[in-house]
Amino acid sequence: MRRFFYPASIVVFGVAENPRNLAKTIVSNCLEMGFKGEIYAVGRQPGRIHGKAIITDPETLPDGIDLAVILVPARFVAETLGLCGRKGIRRAVISTGGFREFSVNVSHVEKELLEVAKRYGIRLIGPNCIGVICPGSGLCTPFNPIQVKRLKNGPVSMVVQSGGVTTQAAYYFSEEHVGFSKIISAGNKLDLNEVDFLEYLMNDEDTQQIHLYLESIDDGKRLMELARGAKKPVVIFKSNVSATASSVAYSHTAALANDDRVVDGALKQAGIVRVHDLRELVVAAKALMLPPLRGNRLAVLSISGGFSVILGDACEKHGFTCPALPKEVISSIERYRRAGVIRLANPMDLGDVHDPKGLIVALKSCLDLEHIDGVVLAFLYDPEVEKIFGRSIGTPEQMLNFLKTLSQEKNKPIAFSLFARREDIEEFKQLNIFPVFNDPVESVQALHVLHDHWRRRNCN
Amino acid sequence: MRRFFYPASIVVFGVAENPRNLAKTIVSNCLEMGFKGEIYAVGRQPGRIHGKAIITDPETLPDGIDLAVILVPARFVAETLGLCGRKGIRRAVISTGGFREFSVNVSHVEKELLEVAKRYGIRLIGPNCIGVICPGSGLCTPFNPIQVKRLKNGPVSMVVQSGGVTTQAAYYFSEEHVGFSKIISAGNKLDLNEVDFLEYLMNDEDTQQIHLYLESIDDGKRLMELARGAKKPVVIFKSNVSATASSVAYSHTAALANDDRVVDGALKQAGIVRVHDLRELVVAAKALMLPPLRGNRLAVLSISGGFSVILGDACEKHGFTCPALPKEVISSIERYRRAGVIRLANPMDLGDVHDPKGLIVALKSCLDLEHIDGVVLAFLYDPEVEKIFGRSIGTPEQMLNFLKTLSQEKNKPIAFSLFARREDIEEFKQLNIFPVFNDPVESVQALHVLHDHWRRRNCN
Repeated sequence: MRRFFYPASIVVFGVAENPRNLAKTIVSNCLEMGFKGEIYAVGRQPGRIHGKAIITDPETLPDGIDLAVILVPARFVAETLGLCGRKGIRRAVISTGGFREFSVNVSHVEKELLEVAKRYGIRLIGPNCIGVICPGSGLCTPFNPIQVKRLKNGPVSMVVQSGGVTTQAAYYFSEEHVGFSKIISAGNKLDLNEVDFLEYLMNDEDTQQIHLYLESIDDGKRLMELARGAKKPVVIFKSNVSATASSVAYSHTAALANDDRVVDGALKQAGIVRVHDLRELVVAAKALMLPPLRGNRLAVLSISGGFSVILGDACEKHGFTCPALPKEVISSIERYRRAGVIRLANPMDLGDVHDPKGLIVALKSCLDLEHIDGVVLAFLYDPEVEKIFGRSIGTPEQMLNFLKTLSQEKNKPIAFSLFARREDIEEFKQLNIFPVFNDPVESVQALHVLHDHWRRRNCN
Repeated sequence: MRRFFYPASIVVFGVAENPRNLAKTIVSNCLEMGFKGEIYAVGRQPGRIHGKAIITDPETLPDGIDLAVILVPARFVAETLGLCGRKGIRRAVISTGGFREFSVNVSHVEKELLEVAKRYGIRLIGPNCIGVICPGSGLCTPFNPIQVKRLKNGPVSMVVQSGGVTTQAAYYFSEEHVGFSKIISAGNKLDLNEVDFLEYLMNDEDTQQIHLYLESIDDGKRLMELARGAKKPVVIFKSNVSATASSVAYSHTAALANDDRVVDGALKQAGIVRVHDLRELVVAAKALMLPPLRGNRLAVLSISGGFSVILGDACEKHGFTCPALPKEVISSIERYRRAGVIRLANPMDLGDVHDPKGLIVALKSCLDLEHIDGVVLAFLYDPEVEKIFGRSIGTPEQMLNFLKTLSQEKNKPIAFSLFARREDIEEFKQLNIFPVFNDPVESVQALHVLHDHWRRRNCN
């Protein structure tokens, strides 16, 4: 399986000079992402693409290429796969669509594909997919032009059933500075499916979290068994849960709807966290980088009274409580108030505490409390305010390092967000030192995911 | 009331040269925002701030200044207000905190403030607030440094109970290119409250929508009566709905929790749309710029199969249906498919339709259908793809103008989002021609708000 992601050489079938040719883009995506291996481009007409001669006689290909990417019309796929077999190729991404998902009449073509694959011992990703993106190796098999320079290497690997969602997830994860190690667009899952990928990723040392976007679960039992034994967090966004979606899902990736209550129960038992949105996957990824959240008791520190109120609502909505803090803790923080016009409670409005020492005392003493499982910190940041009050703990870098060290030391999560302009939030996020959530409410959602994860894990 | 937003002259009390002085910032915020009127700065110590001499003897102030902004310690506020009265000032923003919200013992001070105000006929905003931001006049009374250059003039006016939320809302609305006409930070609402502001904004010609963030509703009956007669959309984000929030809300803006079920029912009857998050306010603002949504039947057009599935789920979740489209419509669009590998339904996966004419036909014919009330359009945009396929209708500007004209002509909403990198989405958004939602799911949430609005309005 490893060479699906780190092949020494690849061959792309279906390439042409024609500006609208899609297979050509597979070559350019790999080149742009810095793929170091050999790339062979095969097509029907001679020509050159991206500095490479198009090979019109595939028999001249060397034997034992690691991976084939096939984007030829559906009726030629089986033939191409046979050729791969004869040439000693044992891995193929079949990008071509128009199989089962399009018409029941072509399912015999899929059967034929499987037969050819079996005959030669070829493992398949797809058909009807965009394959694999692996920033670590530079392999980028999508046939849609992707701004690959924007994609970031990171700790999350993803299995995504849909091609469009694959691209969008790659952008979201990169834009949020989480990055990803591998994305696999699984398509119709004719041979390899989410379970095979999960098994590989569980042992892949570049993968710290496994995320799944699925429109259907094909082998639920094996998936759940595997996930139960996973050391790494497994997060799923399962769509196709409505009657409206189910017909379009079938014609999209031949996905059959599952009974969602059954799915939900099974996921819970398997210790898989479930989210309900693509953006929530990114929130989950950040949340799961934090230390464990062992209970539902939070201390909320906010440098804005209004957000203390909003956060109080958000905590209760997500099943958290904000227990009263001991008097000693309150009075140790009260010493740092400026005008003494705000009363301190939990959620705590630190709007009046301008001395960074007050913030440090508040954070440390809350994390030290036995009846507090985690902290929500909603911080006001404005470069102008910093110049005057220096309210934060040094530069954004120092601040994030402080939070990281403190959170690890106390082994409790700090869900950190900022009241700030988007570009100032971006400044913190791109440092990628410690998770930064986009707003205070999102940080509570994140703790909800984290809490869910640890609850589900501990039930196993 | 108008001169609270467009004063010819203002005086700021509590200014000092001290770098940590907050009142000074009120002056600089106004200067930076381009306030054209006269600004007087009053303080106890002589000195200069932002090129202005600090006036230490307030008796030397000219008579009849339009607006006073008061940020002196709580115990001096009444005295300062009395001075304002004698000087013929009839409007004051009291920024100072430390009143009712801090301790029950100081409520007599509030009573005194009201007495002084009554004696001189002064109307008050606050105390414990940051006042008014009005990009149209350049008035910007917050005492926290605000990057005023970032704030955008726009059609939405807002009443916000909390100062921190005021600033953050101002950034959110500006960053999303919606902009705002006036934001009023209402604080403790000792004199003027949301009802007074609502009444003014209903007749303010620069205001097309009225948004409220409230932690408490003080005069629900009058608010509902007023809202029922409003020609403009009224949207509310009411927080302080949990036990956790209620104690902190009281110490924040002296807000008492209301019974949320009562609030919910009353808002419905009054035709006020309710949202549950600050970001949702911005989504609502964009939604309410679209033509009316008269029913719950949508056509969903998506240039990605995966998102057709996700959108199908989102539509059903929000109470929408996606009725089958007539065969003639389907076949008129099918002519534009490229490889003919995707079946068309509703939600419709247009991934295979690369000809912009196909998109135009799909949009027009769906909007023409009597049994379709609105369209969701999730569009794939990539400058690279555009170079090759030219899938979209011209430049981003031309595309948005096309959608705007079409939507107005058919008098039905098109909820438009993009699969794209964030900066490409930003390119569309900043044109500010037609609402662009941040992702496909958000566009369905937007239609939900719009539907809610029209349902509630039509019940009146």
